[in-house]
Amino acid sequence: MLEIPEERIEKINAHLLSELHETVGANEKMMQAMEYSLMAGGKRIRPLLLMAAADAIKKGSGENFLTFACAVEMIHTYSLIHDDLPAMDNDDYRRGKLTNHKVFGEANAILAGDALLTLAFEVMLRQKNVRSSILMAAVEEAAVAAGASGMVGGQATDLESEGKKIDLPTLKKMHLCKTGALFRASIRAGAILAGASSDRLNALTRYAENFGLAFQITDDILDFVGDEKNLGKPVGSDERNQKSTYVTLTSLEEAKKLSEEAVADALEALKIFGDEADFLRDLVKFLLERKK
Amino acid sequence: MLEIPEERIEKINAHLLSELHETVGANEKMMQAMEYSLMAGGKRIRPLLLMAAADAIKKGSGENFLTFACAVEMIHTYSLIHDDLPAMDNDDYRRGKLTNHKVFGEANAILAGDALLTLAFEVMLRQKNVRSSILMAAVEEAAVAAGASGMVGGQATDLESEGKKIDLPTLKKMHLCKTGALFRASIRAGAILAGASSDRLNALTRYAENFGLAFQITDDILDFVGDEKNLGKPVGSDERNQKSTYVTLTSLEEAKKLSEEAVADALEALKIFGDEADFLRDLVKFLLERKK
Repeated sequence: MLEIPEERIEKINAHLLSELHETVGANEKMMQAMEYSLMAGGKRIRPLLLMAAADAIKKGSGENFLTFACAVEMIHTYSLIHDDLPAMDNDDYRRGKLTNHKVFGEANAILAGDALLTLAFEVMLRQKNVRSSILMAAVEEAAVAAGASGMVGGQATDLESEGKKIDLPTLKKMHLCKTGALFRASIRAGAILAGASSDRLNALTRYAENFGLAFQITDDILDFVGDEKNLGKPVGSDERNQKSTYVTLTSLEEAKKLSEEAVADALEALKIFGDEADFLRDLVKFLLERKK
Repeated sequence: MLEIPEERIEKINAHLLSELHETVGANEKMMQAMEYSLMAGGKRIRPLLLMAAADAIKKGSGENFLTFACAVEMIHTYSLIHDDLPAMDNDDYRRGKLTNHKVFGEANAILAGDALLTLAFEVMLRQKNVRSSILMAAVEEAAVAAGASGMVGGQATDLESEGKKIDLPTLKKMHLCKTGALFRASIRAGAILAGASSDRLNALTRYAENFGLAFQITDDILDFVGDEKNLGKPVGSDERNQKSTYVTLTSLEEAKKLSEEAVADALEALKIFGDEADFLRDLVKFLLERKK
């Protein structure tokens, strides 16, 4: 049973705002557009994962890396703004609110995304209490995950595949890049910042990859069977858009089985940890029960 | 008289390509789109400035920072791709070649820009032969320059000002952000990487700010009186688009005078340097003679 870490989420939300407002002399409309999407009610899974990975390596250290965790959420937010653009997925709503370009216009939405991506790197460098060389290794994780072999590449492949039937390995590779890469980087960065040994880093990486896989499969399942009110977006859009998903390429049954296997493998990877990894365990198990 | 450093430019071009192709497992179309704009014949002013600033601090050290210099050019290239987009300036040509979105489509152009911006940070971290703490200070310069209080903010203000008459201070502030910030960051990063003392860093910063100003004013003059063939783009577009420029807000005469004053102040700032800053001197003087 997952206990939602409300207090930590509040800290993340407050810190996101304070890091954003460190920016001085910025264009005002830009700041509004950035804040709009940053505070649009995300679940903060990536910063939570980063801090939980640090906790797993060094109990209680997670909060030390709040700054870096917020930077990762900024990368996530920028990617949502750009993915929603008319030239991309052309979505009017996100989490039940109008998308950035619907409120601020297309040009400002592109720029707000650009600014958030840039700010993310600035904020990472503000992370205190860690040696420069270690910090740089963590920043590199984020940069590689966000780039052409990660999130951007995954989105490009996704656009190429539109209206086409792709096979399961291609789908898996696409999601590994599009959403998996940033989950992986969040967890690895948290572990690196907390000083993980290579075997523990490897174990958390295996956890992360399975987490990303289970997250995506359950996302596809939710689009197929979910409740529109819970999700804050229309369901069945994948089917209408003839999008290849784990459900459409296999079956609802098979997709459920695949997600359960991924969760089991993620838990297996955590075997070398004690109760300091309990939140990571609860979080990946929760994916099988989530309603949004 | 400026002697074009052809050899150094060739090194920059070769290194840009090799850094780009370090990316493994990337989406192929993305790599093509990134390479298209990166190798579209830029003048490489920013990397040249970065290396020249390093040379001014420590003679002959410029080439050591080729990697970081290329990262700055990637930031510049990303900004051109996004500025040209239909939702922004809607330009079909850039340097006499079709703009990125005209060749690869709007979605891919947005993504290629995102990927280049991200890659820039990855490449900065690949810079060798410098202490981590110094490297981080240089990365911070680039991040701040690229963000909401720099390039992105300037572009947002530019879009807001479209079709409106703005005053000279607003125009100056806008360009200080939109183009000035990255010139400034290039020069400061080069100086920081080469281990500049604070008075030398301050002198180069003053040079940089005047360089940026002179660059923008001469750019506006060229749009007014330049030769379409030399420029590779139509002239008079500022006037047609009712864009406020140094020429339209003052006069051709006054704009020329302002650019000469900026160049003089840039040269004044370099007084504490010997011949190790000669390239910087020649480059800023060249702005008054440039034809493209």
